[in-house]
This record gives sequence, C-alpha cells and structure tokens, in this order.
Amino acid sequence: MKIYKKNDETSYTLGVFPTIELLKKRPQDVIRVVVHSSIIQNKGYPLIQELCQQYHIHIEIHDKTIDKLSPKNNCFAIGVFKKYSDQIQEGNHVVLVNPMDMGNMGTMMRTMLGFGYLHLVIIRPAVDIFDPKVIRASMGAIFHLNIQYYDNFESYYQEYKYHEFYPFMLKGAKNIHQISTNNVHSLVFGNESSGLDDTYLNYGQSVFIPHSETIDSLNLSMALGLTLFHFSKEQFQRKEVLRDNV
Amino acid sequence: MKIYKKNDETSYTLGVFPTIELLKKRPQDVIRVVVHSSIIQNKGYPLIQELCQQYHIHIEIHDKTIDKLSPKNNCFAIGVFKKYSDQIQEGNHVVLVNPMDMGNMGTMMRTMLGFGYLHLVIIRPAVDIFDPKVIRASMGAIFHLNIQYYDNFESYYQEYKYHEFYPFMLKGAKNIHQISTNNVHSLVFGNESSGLDDTYLNYGQSVFIPHSETIDSLNLSMALGLTLFHFSKEQFQRKEVLRDNV
Repeated sequence: MKIYKKNDETSYTLGVFPTIELLKKRPQDVIRVVVHSSIIQNKGYPLIQELCQQYHIHIEIHDKTIDKLSPKNNCFAIGVFKKYSDQIQEGNHVVLVNPMDMGNMGTMMRTMLGFGYLHLVIIRPAVDIFDPKVIRASMGAIFHLNIQYYDNFESYYQEYKYHEFYPFMLKGAKNIHQISTNNVHSLVFGNESSGLDDTYLNYGQSVFIPHSETIDSLNLSMALGLTLFHFSKEQFQRKEVLRDNV
Repeated sequence: MKIYKKNDETSYTLGVFPTIELLKKRPQDVIRVVVHSSIIQNKGYPLIQELCQQYHIHIEIHDKTIDKLSPKNNCFAIGVFKKYSDQIQEGNHVVLVNPMDMGNMGTMMRTMLGFGYLHLVIIRPAVDIFDPKVIRASMGAIFHLNIQYYDNFESYYQEYKYHEFYPFMLKGAKNIHQISTNNVHSLVFGNESSGLDDTYLNYGQSVFIPHSETIDSLNLSMALGLTLFHFSKEQFQRKEVLRDNV
C-alpha cells in the first residue's frame, strides 16, 4: 500500500473510530481492513471484528503498513475502500464554493452531522474529500453525509432554485440573528481566504454574521458552525438533555 | 535565534499580520523585528516600518533566520518579544480547564476577540500560550486579550464567585438555547478530549449544547464559538451591517 494520491481509485481511513464509521455506513465499498498488532488492547477492536465478519471483509495484521501510512504513532486500524460518488438528496443543503483546507473540511463535515445537515455540495476547484487527512478530521462523519461536486455554482443553482438561498458574505444584507426559516434552504459559503464574490449578492438573501471590528472575519468552519447552530435552533431548543441515555 | 522552547524568556510571531498586531498592542515588549528580504513587496510592510519607527524598534533583514524559524515558505516577518504576564480584569470571562491543543487555543482566542470576550482564564496544566503555533493560529488575537493562568479552578472560583458560572458539559442540566443573561458571567469549558468532570455540576448552572446523537460531541473550539455567539447575541442582533465602512 502506498501513501494516498488524489488520482488513486481507493483511499483509506486512519484510526479505529473512522474505520468503524466506514464499516457501518459504507461496507459495500470496503476492500480490506489493516490493523496494527497492538490493536488487541483497543476497546473498539471487537466491533471492527464483528462488522468485518458480518460483511465478509478481510482483516490483515500488518504493522509496517500502519507505520508507513500513519505519520503519528496513534493509529491502530486502516480501512481501505473504493472511492464512490454520491448524490445529494432533497433536504437542507450546505454549499461550499472552492473550499481548499483539508482540516477545515473535515471539521465542517462533523459539525454538519452534529446539526442534522446531511447534504453537502462542493463547487470545484476544491479540496479532495477522500484525502485521508479530510476523512480523519471528519472523524468518519464523511461516511454519513451525501456529498456531491458541481463544476460551477450556476448549474447547482438551476437545479435547486426553488430552495431559499442564503449566501454568507461580509457584505451580506441581513444580520443572521434576524433570520429564521422553516423552508428548505441552501446555506452558501465561500473559500477560506477570499469568501464569496459580489455576484452572490444576487442569489436569495445574503447574510452577515455580526462580530467585533477587531477581527477581519471568522474562520470558515466557525462561521459554518454558528450558522448551523442558528438555523437548526428550532429543532434543538426544547431538548431537555443532550442524550436520552445519559 | 533558535526555535522556540517552553522555558525561553522570549517568543516570536510568525507572519506579517500577527507581527503588526504585536507592534500595535504590546510595543513595550518587542525586542526586534526580523524580516525576509522579499517583504518589500508585501503591502503590510509600510505599517511595520511605521510602527517600528514610532516605538524605536530595530528591523533586521535576515532571510536565514526566517527560513529557520518558519517551517513553511510563507512567512516574511518575525516579531521577537519578551514574554509577559497578564491579569484578567472585571468583565465576562472564558475559563478553559486544561486545554492542550495549540491550534485550537489560537482559534479560540480569535473567536473570543470576535465576540467581545477579552478575558481568558487558563487552568493548569495547559498549553503554553506563547508557543509560536498558538500565536499564529490566533492571528495575533492573543495580544488583544488579557490572559491569566491559575493553578486550579477553585482558586479562580473563590476570587470570582459573584459571577454567574456556566460550566459546559455533556451532562449539563440546561439547554443553551434556554439561557440568556445580562449579568457578568464565566463560561467554563473542559479539556479537548475529556471535558469537565462531574464536580463541575456543582458550580453555577451547568449547560449542554444540543446536537444530534450521531456525533459524540462538538469539538472544543466549535463549542466555545457557538456559546460566545449565543451569549453575545443581545449585543450584536440589531447590527444592520457588519462594518460601518462597508
């Protein structure tokens, strides 16, 4: 096995937790699982074994592969899988225009999952979502989401123009605190350093997130997180405990 | 100059933007500024020159120093400064108990500044805020904040027990959406991986941030960001534009 390259037909998870998420959500795409001999002590291993048995997936113990693919010494399992392509479905969408940062991308996937946003549109050029760094930063959330690339924003917009569109921009016309909606919507965010250009002022209701003038802007994953927290408020505001089983 | 170590008496900023923030906010602590010869083309350089002249700070052009201290090739200025110790002041506080991640810490500082939270309490053991990685991730926000370390939570609590205390915990008793306050408060967050232990249920009003059960928890900097966004809503919700000069 070699270190991942963008044009490879397969990719891999690094770590027990994302490997379990892969096995649970995309077993049909898993080629094999490679583990480090010291995984025996890991409390996630029985579940990996159980899932691999259920889906007839081979587990290989091979320390050298793990040491080679994982830069840090804290990875005990790798799930090798065939890269797949997905389609977004009806529901609320997050649209990222030209996102480039791998760590940010993973964090955003995880936050989306946390607030019940399951459909992610990515406008090219953009980061490769199957890069192991993205998968790792997402902690496996990537396997729970429907993710679809588009070559340009306009083709996505034409397909979903009946959605309410909210482009997030420093020049946005309306304060996020003054917005609430129960309609199906698309939340649109620009690139980490340049944001959305002025043409996006023409799509739907542009929005700004107010903050003090001592910083230029919030970082992208933070801005997305605040927005999802705000837009999903209705759904979460009456919860009495975080989990029913606590 | 050598790569930073925790016990050094000085530290340094990496990059034009954080160096400008250092020069603006803590000129009295700056020892010297080192720049790369190619900084001439950088649009931030005239401001660095102006600030250095104003405060009689020496600028040294030394490419090798920059190349040595900056792992990536995108740093053109370094501001060397004497490490200082700060005191928090009256106002709303953020309290981080045993934070360990340097990138997270920088992001949190920046988000605090963005939402007008200027006082940060850190309970030891904890990350070294003067590590250049923290300073860089904060994009210089560190120099705008008052930051004070305490050896344990109890000694901080005894000093400020007239504050409203909100410890954020998965087991928290109240949903964040049901909380709002105009009183002086302390928002308390635990370590990135372990959170706050159960003893914190006894301080003030414990809070949870509701999210879907498909993720274990939000990451720390995201949880803090959402919380500051929520708690500072009153102050920001009537803003009509992000900046007066847009």
